Amino acid sequence: MNIAAPNIENAGPFTRACGWHKLLPNKIVEMAKKIKKLGQDDPRRIIHSLKVGLALTLVSLFYYIQPLYVRIGENSIWAVMTVILVFEFSVGATLGKGLNRMLATLSAGALGVGVHYLATLSGEKGEPIVLGFFVAMIAATVTFVRFFPTIKARYDYGLLIFILTFSLVSVSGYREDKVLHMAYQRVSTIIMGSLIAIVTCICIRPVWIGEELQNLIANNIEKLGNFLQGFGSEFFKISEDRQPLSDIAFVQGYKNLVTSKNNEETMANLARWEMWHYRFGLFHPWKQYVKVGTLTRQCANKIEALNNYLNSEIQTLNEFGRKIQEPSTKICSESGKALRELASAVKTMNQPTSVNAHIENSKTAIENLKFMLDTYHLEDADLQEIIPSAEVALTLIDVVPCIVKIADAVQELASLAHFKTPATRVSP
Amino acid sequence: MNIAAPNIENAGPFTRACGWHKLLPNKIVEMAKKIKKLGQDDPRRIIHSLKVGLALTLVSLFYYIQPLYVRIGENSIWAVMTVILVFEFSVGATLGKGLNRMLATLSAGALGVGVHYLATLSGEKGEPIVLGFFVAMIAATVTFVRFFPTIKARYDYGLLIFILTFSLVSVSGYREDKVLHMAYQRVSTIIMGSLIAIVTCICIRPVWIGEELQNLIANNIEKLGNFLQGFGSEFFKISEDRQPLSDIAFVQGYKNLVTSKNNEETMANLARWEMWHYRFGLFHPWKQYVKVGTLTRQCANKIEALNNYLNSEIQTLNEFGRKIQEPSTKICSESGKALRELASAVKTMNQPTSVNAHIENSKTAIENLKFMLDTYHLEDADLQEIIPSAEVALTLIDVVPCIVKIADAVQELASLAHFKTPATRVSP
Repeated sequence: MNIAAPNIENAGPFTRACGWHKLLPNKIVEMAKKIKKLGQDDPRRIIHSLKVGLALTLVSLFYYIQPLYVRIGENSIWAVMTVILVFEFSVGATLGKGLNRMLATLSAGALGVGVHYLATLSGEKGEPIVLGFFVAMIAATVTFVRFFPTIKARYDYGLLIFILTFSLVSVSGYREDKVLHMAYQRVSTIIMGSLIAIVTCICIRPVWIGEELQNLIANNIEKLGNFLQGFGSEFFKISEDRQPLSDIAFVQGYKNLVTSKNNEETMANLARWEMWHYRFGLFHPWKQYVKVGTLTRQCANKIEALNNYLNSEIQTLNEFGRKIQEPSTKICSESGKALRELASAVKTMNQPTSVNAHIENSKTAIENLKFMLDTYHLEDADLQEIIPSAEVALTLIDVVPCIVKIADAVQELASLAHFKTPATRVSP
Repeated sequence: MNIAAPNIENAGPFTRACGWHKLLPNKIVEMAKKIKKLGQDDPRRIIHSLKVGLALTLVSLFYYIQPLYVRIGENSIWAVMTVILVFEFSVGATLGKGLNRMLATLSAGALGVGVHYLATLSGEKGEPIVLGFFVAMIAATVTFVRFFPTIKARYDYGLLIFILTFSLVSVSGYREDKVLHMAYQRVSTIIMGSLIAIVTCICIRPVWIGEELQNLIANNIEKLGNFLQGFGSEFFKISEDRQPLSDIAFVQGYKNLVTSKNNEETMANLARWEMWHYRFGLFHPWKQYVKVGTLTRQCANKIEALNNYLNSEIQTLNEFGRKIQEPSTKICSESGKALRELASAVKTMNQPTSVNAHIENSKTAIENLKFMLDTYHLEDADLQEIIPSAEVALTLIDVVPCIVKIADAVQELASLAHFKTPATRVSP
């Protein structure tokens, strides 16, 4: 390639064109592959794009069909705009934007009409001054309110639309006599547009962000459990043909776990808008999911230390390692089982049943491990050799309280969200 | 309070009103305090809010002043809308949105006019079908393109506006004969609105997101350096009146360090729009800042392990601790100095000078520490007592290569961004 490239550059325009001619198909193929991958990674993206197209076609019918156009007229442009701006990937985001937009337009429209009448009272000269004062003041105030983190999380779009509608109604009201009519038309077309977007989003293959969040949290807990179980059986395996741990599947899964806190909080905020989801209902405790997610991340950070030993060159266990092997493996497998059951509890919305038993087992194993560490005699031992195994042991002792915290948080979630009690088997 | 609350609830409506009457002023005072704190935390928020009010007043002049209104007419509504939607807190975000909006409107307007003429060719019956087909197809395609992460990062808003303008021009063109005139007016008012927003944002106390990013990265490196220096002098301090380390200022600073990667990437993407910043210029290597930030975070995660020992109950150093004290303190102080110099290099955009010397010193200290660990005799030692100090030593050995990586990345940044070489002092 290094030889071919200068050839093209130094060649005449015709040869160069031939060169590009050869390169261009490659570029196109590459691009096509990227597009295909984007669709294959998550086919819902293609469906979402088609849904947007459909919703737009529906809303443009207001223009194409004469009787509809006569009724609503030019203002249907607001409905078209609303569909484009409100339609989002998930139901929660679409509902959030739609409701925000409708409420904000309604309240700002009313305020705009009020200010318009107030301004007309102050005479022809005074009118633009009063209008200008109110527009600047209300825009500045609402812009400042948008900085409140709790308000920003849920109502940011609504506040923006509030400024927008208020300015439009009161400013353009200066040149328009039928302000009330204008405000009414704007509100009604925006409600129509929002409803079209919301209905299309919910009725055709909806993406519920609440379900996404639930799966994300459950999968993260499960990955942690898989990692612990896998680590326990691999690190203390006494064999010479052990493969480097970093290649093994459970380690790769664990590395994908580090999701950002912001992401989960955004999802929880959006999920709150999905008030009519058949499984979650109106008062689902979304905040508790964020709490479970945070605890899972803290636990993952603790376990991160174990990662350091995955690539270590110790291929066989020394005497000390063999000594602590049994309780350490027990801790790993029992707490791994506890985590996996917690994950399945979150996913299926069933009360976890045997988690406490697994946690008790790992606590017993911790006591055994501590006793061994206390009574181990250090003579003849090499410090550099002992440290890794000892550190693994201390980390494991640290990890179990973390898992207890996750279990408590999931239990709280189970009672807040009324998880089902699995049917107990009755002997016939 | 537990006694008072039921009293109010059980009391008659009059007493209850009195209760609320007493509570209400508290609520208002609390709210006022929150508002004050929000403004005090970052006074630029207040300035930003006032700037938005000012820009809106400027743009509404198109309505209030007769000669201006005659020229532009009702379409000035688009200018008002543009100011509200484009005006953002930082210059980068405002420029990004403004340029996106202008370019998208321009290209989508042209395409819309083209499709409109194509549709008119297909007769009265065919026109809505051709229009509907193109609108749905282009909306679906562009919506899909918005899923590409690289495109989403910089052009998401532009693509949204592209769909919007294209739909508006081609759909409303069905009922409007002067499509070209409409498209022209829309484009020109949007350009006007964008320019008003951009000029107001840049001319009055601008917030440059590039400067914010630079400071954020530099501060994070500095906090890391402070933590290392503080840890070194506190952990190995041989005194009995040592206070719990977690209370000390440098630990608190370190805890604020965990910023999210997404945040830095967003800032870098926005900073790229600030092409005319006097200090950074057109091709400032923003990506390299993100790289330095990522390495800093990795280093912070390694050091996280040291945090575990801050609350430990060991109040005095054992014999082993005293043995490794000297090289460990040396590593902490030298790598801390290196980090602080790197931070000041990023902040002042000067080439770092003595970083390599500090790094060499810590490497020498590491060799000493390794030698001590190798030759330490374990007889008479208690494992539980040795482990914490040994772990600290091993973590420090691990941390230095991380710092070398940060130093390399900052050096690369310095050469990419042409950092100044500090004037060498010449003896007279």
